[in-house]
Amino acid sequence: MKIGAIVLAAGEGKRFKGNKLLATLKGKSIITYALESINNLDRVVIAGRYAKELIDHLKNEIIIYNPSWNKGVSSSIKLGIRFFQDYDGVLVVLGDMPLVTKNDIEKILSRFDNNCEAVIPTYNNLWGNPVLLSNKLFPKLLTLEGDQGAKQILKIEEEKSSSNIYTVECSIGVTLDIDTKEDINKIEKIMVEKR
Amino acid sequence: MKIGAIVLAAGEGKRFKGNKLLATLKGKSIITYALESINNLDRVVIAGRYAKELIDHLKNEIIIYNPSWNKGVSSSIKLGIRFFQDYDGVLVVLGDMPLVTKNDIEKILSRFDNNCEAVIPTYNNLWGNPVLLSNKLFPKLLTLEGDQGAKQILKIEEEKSSSNIYTVECSIGVTLDIDTKEDINKIEKIMVEKR
Repeated sequence: MKIGAIVLAAGEGKRFKGNKLLATLKGKSIITYALESINNLDRVVIAGRYAKELIDHLKNEIIIYNPSWNKGVSSSIKLGIRFFQDYDGVLVVLGDMPLVTKNDIEKILSRFDNNCEAVIPTYNNLWGNPVLLSNKLFPKLLTLEGDQGAKQILKIEEEKSSSNIYTVECSIGVTLDIDTKEDINKIEKIMVEKR
Repeated sequence: MKIGAIVLAAGEGKRFKGNKLLATLKGKSIITYALESINNLDRVVIAGRYAKELIDHLKNEIIIYNPSWNKGVSSSIKLGIRFFQDYDGVLVVLGDMPLVTKNDIEKILSRFDNNCEAVIPTYNNLWGNPVLLSNKLFPKLLTLEGDQGAKQILKIEEEKSSSNIYTVECSIGVTLDIDTKEDINKIEKIMVEKR
C-alpha cells in the first residue's frame, strides 16, 4: 500500500504568539519530532505564515506554500491530497504533536487495509491524530471548505452503518498538541516521566 | 480539457548572477509576465534557490519548494506533474520568458486535442516554449532524471511514426529567454520595436 504523509505546518500559532513549529523541545524543533516519527514515508510539508522559516530549517523536504493558509486548514489538506492523489491513502500529520511515536505510526499504518476508509488513533477512546485517510475518501475531502478538517467527514462517515472507519489505541501522544508556550513545558515533563 | 500550468522558477540563474525572475523589465518582474500570460489557467510555481523571495513576491500563488532544485530541472517538472496528475495535460511555462504572449498561449491550448501527445510552439520552425504535454506522456515524464527536460522525451516521441506531436507557429517570444543581464536590454528593445 502506498501511503503519503501530509505534514500540516501552515498555521499562524495565534495562541503561541509565534512560530511554535520551530520552538525547541529538548534541543530539537517541534516539527522535527513529527518528521522523525514518519521517516519512512513519502511526505510533503504544507506551509503558510512561516513558510520562509520552514524552508530555511527543513533543507530536504518538499514544502508547498499555501497562499490561502489564513482561510483555514481545509485548503492545506486539499493541496496535500492533490500531491498524493495516486496513493492508496494519506496520513494527515500535525506538525505540533511531538509525542506521537514511531510505534504509534506503525500501529496506524498496519491497521489499514483495502476495505478501510480511515484509521483513527485513540487514547482512552478519545480520537487523536494523525488520521490515515483512504483514497476512497479523497473526493469527499476535496469538498472541505474553510476551517473544516478531516474529522468532520469522519464523524459523518462513522454514523453510517456501512462505514469502515477503524480505530487503534495508541500512546497519549496522539492526543497532545502544542498550542501555547506552557504546553511545551507540560510536554517536556511527560517526556521525562515516560523515560 | 483540464490543463494545469507548471511554472518553472527553481533555477539558480548562474549566468545572471542572481535571481533573474524578480529583475524588472519596464517596471514589472520577469516572472509576472509569465504569470500574466497564463492568467486563466490553474497553476503551481516550482521554486528552489530563490523560494523565499518568490513567496514574498507572489502572494497568491501556490509555490512548491523543490529541495532537489540544484540537481536539475527534471525534479521540478515531476513535482508539477504530481500536482496535476488528474488533468488532461500540463503546460510547462518557463519563468524567464517574458515575451510569450496570451495569444501564443491561446494558440497552443487550442491546438490540443484527445489524440495529441504534446503541442510545441515554434517560431520560424524552431522549437520553443511553453510546451503542452498530454497526460499520455506523464508516465514517461516521471522517469526523467537530472537535468533532462521534456524536450528529450519529445524528440524521441517525434521520431516514432505513430507519434502525435503537434507544432503551432507562434510569436518570437516562444524562443526568447533571459539568461544574462544583457538579455533584459535586448528584450526591452524588442518590446519597443513591436509596439
